[in-house]
Amino acid sequence: MPVKGFQFSAVEAAIKKPGRLDLALIFSQTPARVAAVFTTNKVKAAPVLISQQRAKDGICRAVLVNSGNANACTGEQGMRDALTCGRKTAEALGLPDEELLIASTGVIGQTLPMDRFRAGIEPLVDGLSGGTIENVADAIMTTDSFAKLETRSGAAGGVPYTITGIAKGAGMIQPNMATMLAFLVTDADVEPAFLDRAFKEAVDGSFNAITVDGDTSTNDTALIMANGAAANPLITAGTPEGERFVALLHDVLLSLAKLIVKDGEGATKFVEIRVQGAADHADAKQAALAVANSLLVKTAFFGQDANWGRIIAAVGYSGCEMDQGKVRISFDDVLMVQDGIFTGGDAEAAGTEVLKQKEFTVTIDLRIGSGAATVYTSDLTYDYVRINADYRT
Amino acid sequence: MPVKGFQFSAVEAAIKKPGRLDLALIFSQTPARVAAVFTTNKVKAAPVLISQQRAKDGICRAVLVNSGNANACTGEQGMRDALTCGRKTAEALGLPDEELLIASTGVIGQTLPMDRFRAGIEPLVDGLSGGTIENVADAIMTTDSFAKLETRSGAAGGVPYTITGIAKGAGMIQPNMATMLAFLVTDADVEPAFLDRAFKEAVDGSFNAITVDGDTSTNDTALIMANGAAANPLITAGTPEGERFVALLHDVLLSLAKLIVKDGEGATKFVEIRVQGAADHADAKQAALAVANSLLVKTAFFGQDANWGRIIAAVGYSGCEMDQGKVRISFDDVLMVQDGIFTGGDAEAAGTEVLKQKEFTVTIDLRIGSGAATVYTSDLTYDYVRINADYRT
Repeated sequence: MPVKGFQFSAVEAAIKKPGRLDLALIFSQTPARVAAVFTTNKVKAAPVLISQQRAKDGICRAVLVNSGNANACTGEQGMRDALTCGRKTAEALGLPDEELLIASTGVIGQTLPMDRFRAGIEPLVDGLSGGTIENVADAIMTTDSFAKLETRSGAAGGVPYTITGIAKGAGMIQPNMATMLAFLVTDADVEPAFLDRAFKEAVDGSFNAITVDGDTSTNDTALIMANGAAANPLITAGTPEGERFVALLHDVLLSLAKLIVKDGEGATKFVEIRVQGAADHADAKQAALAVANSLLVKTAFFGQDANWGRIIAAVGYSGCEMDQGKVRISFDDVLMVQDGIFTGGDAEAAGTEVLKQKEFTVTIDLRIGSGAATVYTSDLTYDYVRINADYRT
Repeated sequence: MPVKGFQFSAVEAAIKKPGRLDLALIFSQTPARVAAVFTTNKVKAAPVLISQQRAKDGICRAVLVNSGNANACTGEQGMRDALTCGRKTAEALGLPDEELLIASTGVIGQTLPMDRFRAGIEPLVDGLSGGTIENVADAIMTTDSFAKLETRSGAAGGVPYTITGIAKGAGMIQPNMATMLAFLVTDADVEPAFLDRAFKEAVDGSFNAITVDGDTSTNDTALIMANGAAANPLITAGTPEGERFVALLHDVLLSLAKLIVKDGEGATKFVEIRVQGAADHADAKQAALAVANSLLVKTAFFGQDANWGRIIAAVGYSGCEMDQGKVRISFDDVLMVQDGIFTGGDAEAAGTEVLKQKEFTVTIDLRIGSGAATVYTSDLTYDYVRINADYRT
């Protein structure tokens, strides 16, 4: 079911390679509530600085996004360019500047090709009548090999609503959302403070639980616009409708996050790293991230090598509380390590079979507490090196 | 000049691949003072647990080391095996157990091949009459492509002394000395507390300032034995002789550390990352390590891509204090970034020329304080992936 009251458009403005959409617009026909999170990198691109400020009032009508140029590390010129592009677009839409957010992804350190960007704005706005969110999903791709879109429907007070999200990722992904853009739109009517909290929590359990290479970009932006066009009774915290909304929102975000990992540069494996029995959640997450980011673990996944030694070593240096004599490690259902030592017998052969699959789960039970966390990661391959040694982001 | 009063031996005990030395012994003819540091990984191999305890009294006569099997994650059996091997060797040398330290490197999670290990001890001890430290340097190699040995000579009160060190490294190297073994011997007579402090400081500025892949092993051990056989006047803190000793010690350690980075698995580049103008030393080191460990930066080095954007992004997510509008980045003498933005003009071409060299320096000046730190790293290559996807450590 399409999300009501939103229009979409994408054009080729020749900011990235010829023949690819690279300038896109999301437009809400009525003022939408917005919740947004941005990169934690201290080096922030001009569009991030601008959007972070503008999102604070919680209202947004449109998002302008380009790929091919991140407008990062471009100084005052970059700020002027971003503001100019935003102003031109807002004017064409008949909006005050502040109701438009901006996002960019692509090469760092080059100023925007302003002539081409400006020339793209009129066809972009004209295209709103006929565009789709799929077009926008295409336009935000950089090294992504496929467009990422997830949609879920729910109801509040018997009135149906939809949440649809698109994202880009590929390389440079890690907690705190490296070079990751995600835009969600919903026609649900949601109480603003609840929307904000629900979105930030859902981002923590999804985009901030994935890692491809541990780098964090200058441009990460994830936001949701809720315009209430479904005309449902207002969704609020502490109600069954609120819980249902949170569950759907989390589902959309986690599904997008998993797609991003699956499309990680050069990835051939999708691995869920689950740490349980930790002292607390923070410890569990720290251990899971250390394992998920370990180059030795990731190359072993690529080599389909049941190398639990590298996994326990990564837990050991993660800084989490542990007792090596208690640790249990499983590959799917195959128990590899019990009380910190190899279970022996058929475990190596059985564990190797698990690693031959495209997707599997590594469970690390520290058996000292009740903290748990899950992180999603990929393997490290020749293609990762090739893509990043050749391609400039 | 050979270090007086030490004997060395290495044999093939068939613990690793056929045709390679894998069991070695360092022996001091008189009791030597010892200073040692061990892995910070909470998962520690049996030999580390034993040696850490035995080194505490500051006296050591011999070090028994094997490659091919780390004796890590081997539980109580692993402890019994290590103690047995140590006892057999100490008996053959006529020493109390406590005066012998043990180190192991190799595959994790397999118990030692005790029959072969035991059978190696007699020829090992017999070989002390004819062995050299070069033999020991060969015997401790795993994926290393060359043996690492550095030696320096000094004098105290006109009496000459020598410091010689050997090390193994290759992959899995990072601060806190991942799968790194280093053994230094000196015939200098050095005051014990001064030796301990000097050694730990020198390790901090050398082995803890290098990184290949950010992983930390279960077996790292670095130690120095000082037996006083040079018969020099005792070297103490706060004297010119003490300063000279510290300088030589640092030189040996830093030279070994650089050799380890140069021999990093698959490495084609040796890169010095210098951060200056940081709020303090800790901030500078944090930023330098983030850059040195960034996969995107390391693949760009491999690709000879003057991608300063990835470098400034890594500084940005490192957590160090910074003002992006002040940052200056140079590749050797080529200023790439000034006030946080690209200097333009010929910088890209000139920067690319710098990156074509086998060795270069990246200097990042944050220009907000006086903290500085230097870290040494390598590039990330296809061969790194190949070695680690195929080879089991």
